[in-house]
Amino acid sequence: MRVGIVGATGLVGLEMIKVLEERNFPISELFLFASERSLGERLSFRERDLPVEVLGPASFETKNLDFVLFATSAGLSAEYADRAAESGAIVIDNSSHFRLFEDVPLIVPEVNPQAIHQSRGRGVIANPNCSTIQMMVVLKPLQDLSPLQRVIVSTYQSVSGAGSDAMEELHQQVLASFNHQPIEPKAFPYQIAFNCIPQIDVFLENGMTKEEMKMVSESRKILGLPDLKISATAVRVSTFISHSESLNVDLKEPQPLEKIREVLSKSPGLVVLDDPKSKVYPTPFSAAGTDSVYVGRIRRDLSSENGIHLWVVADNLRKGAATNAIQIAELCIKNQYRRR
Amino acid sequence: MRVGIVGATGLVGLEMIKVLEERNFPISELFLFASERSLGERLSFRERDLPVEVLGPASFETKNLDFVLFATSAGLSAEYADRAAESGAIVIDNSSHFRLFEDVPLIVPEVNPQAIHQSRGRGVIANPNCSTIQMMVVLKPLQDLSPLQRVIVSTYQSVSGAGSDAMEELHQQVLASFNHQPIEPKAFPYQIAFNCIPQIDVFLENGMTKEEMKMVSESRKILGLPDLKISATAVRVSTFISHSESLNVDLKEPQPLEKIREVLSKSPGLVVLDDPKSKVYPTPFSAAGTDSVYVGRIRRDLSSENGIHLWVVADNLRKGAATNAIQIAELCIKNQYRRR
Repeated sequence: MRVGIVGATGLVGLEMIKVLEERNFPISELFLFASERSLGERLSFRERDLPVEVLGPASFETKNLDFVLFATSAGLSAEYADRAAESGAIVIDNSSHFRLFEDVPLIVPEVNPQAIHQSRGRGVIANPNCSTIQMMVVLKPLQDLSPLQRVIVSTYQSVSGAGSDAMEELHQQVLASFNHQPIEPKAFPYQIAFNCIPQIDVFLENGMTKEEMKMVSESRKILGLPDLKISATAVRVSTFISHSESLNVDLKEPQPLEKIREVLSKSPGLVVLDDPKSKVYPTPFSAAGTDSVYVGRIRRDLSSENGIHLWVVADNLRKGAATNAIQIAELCIKNQYRRR
Repeated sequence: MRVGIVGATGLVGLEMIKVLEERNFPISELFLFASERSLGERLSFRERDLPVEVLGPASFETKNLDFVLFATSAGLSAEYADRAAESGAIVIDNSSHFRLFEDVPLIVPEVNPQAIHQSRGRGVIANPNCSTIQMMVVLKPLQDLSPLQRVIVSTYQSVSGAGSDAMEELHQQVLASFNHQPIEPKAFPYQIAFNCIPQIDVFLENGMTKEEMKMVSESRKILGLPDLKISATAVRVSTFISHSESLNVDLKEPQPLEKIREVLSKSPGLVVLDDPKSKVYPTPFSAAGTDSVYVGRIRRDLSSENGIHLWVVADNLRKGAATNAIQIAELCIKNQYRRR
């Protein structure tokens, strides 16, 4: 396969290169694209140094790419993804731009692999929001066990979701804070070091943030449940990598917790870490650098007969972004979905 | 008034001294007690250095104290609080030991001041759990507006809730982490620096932690709603001071958000910070060092017709502990509840 990565020098782009190598993705040639800021950079893939090309209108025309993975902003994806698809490649886009388009499948491979067949025309497949992906891997087996009646989620999201500048900002703010130096937030609205900020992305008319509404709308599309009752609170916390979620789910019928644990532990992409007496539960620190979604703290919700609590953690750069995108590419290959 | 503070050298004890001074509490003499570890220490109050006495069985006998504030572990409170009360003092205990005793009122002064009249016999009044207190200040006016049908809360709790050793541990772990040195957790089950730990206190048979069940049982007692449907997830995050809570509340009847904001902004002890378009909402960092409970992000819960989301923040050492205890003492004075 001839593969391109757009935004290759960003956090998610770099993780994509790593994941392609780790999973031994069948690549004959890899092309890396980034903005002018990265002019002259070279990145390592399979022990070779590859040049980074500056992204431009003609980037995809003559390269005969099979897959182009976009790890760019919504604006850049809007500008370039269709061009890449028109060149004959399958585009897998990590931005929010295409996610709710009717002719663009929005895929978590463990959850709705069948959706790739919606994409034949346009050639663009969207990778969901990081917080949505990890929640989907848990909600799908629960929905199959007993239909979801209501979902409430509160997130604990790491700064890496806002890019490498945001990670550096947390680092610098921590040092400044310890040295009693003034702190001027840039990547976040307020100081994030040793703080919690209940705002991710911009606010919308209904008082929710865009991040919260992504979790609502994308979940409904991925699960094929347009009327799913779901609401979210998205909070940035002082961690570098991995997002955590406190999840409350009302099922149609009450289910024994043992049954729920059994169903979840047999579910693909999901690891149950749930032995509280031995202090076994997931944390962002332990999930970082891995490709699974982890779930623990599975217990009855005392406020609802059919309700359960769950604590869900995943590496937002990997399963929440790079790994999921590459799993989508693998799904295309397995299903012989090709455009050239 | 003759006042004693037991556990005066701990985080909450020190905060009590500060708050007594700030609020100009009517003190004729202040006595400070601590364990042998603090032998020889002196602490400043109203520009005087006071000695710290080692706590013992005879500490309270002859001092004719009017109030003794306990900022100790449940074990020490169990051992010494009744002795202090038997000496004729009103005891206000910050530990969990007495909170659910029938003859011990559990008080948040803005919420259930009338409960002090339950205490005449024993002389002990309990200060609720820090996470419970800030939630009560928000739930009470909502309950008065329209009865609470269901409450779900996920917390973001700072390390200061676990004492000064825990604060030092976060500090040291951050430095170790930046210097790539090994980290051995002591105050917490896992590394807390740049992590989230979904365990506060020990686990119980129902899979909840003791901290989560405190929020459930104490809320029911304080609100006088023994059947209140309420459930909690308590999480420790990488912050030093202030606890945050993502709160979901189902009311009996739908209420316009403007009405809810109006009711909350008129409610004692509560400050509404809720102008998302101007990035106005509470954060732990901005609440630290203050005595109010802050609420923002007030909006409809998309998963329930009568549901609302709220984001609630307060300084856990002040309103969550020291300030609330001293407000209880002030309430006793105002209500002429005296034992000698």
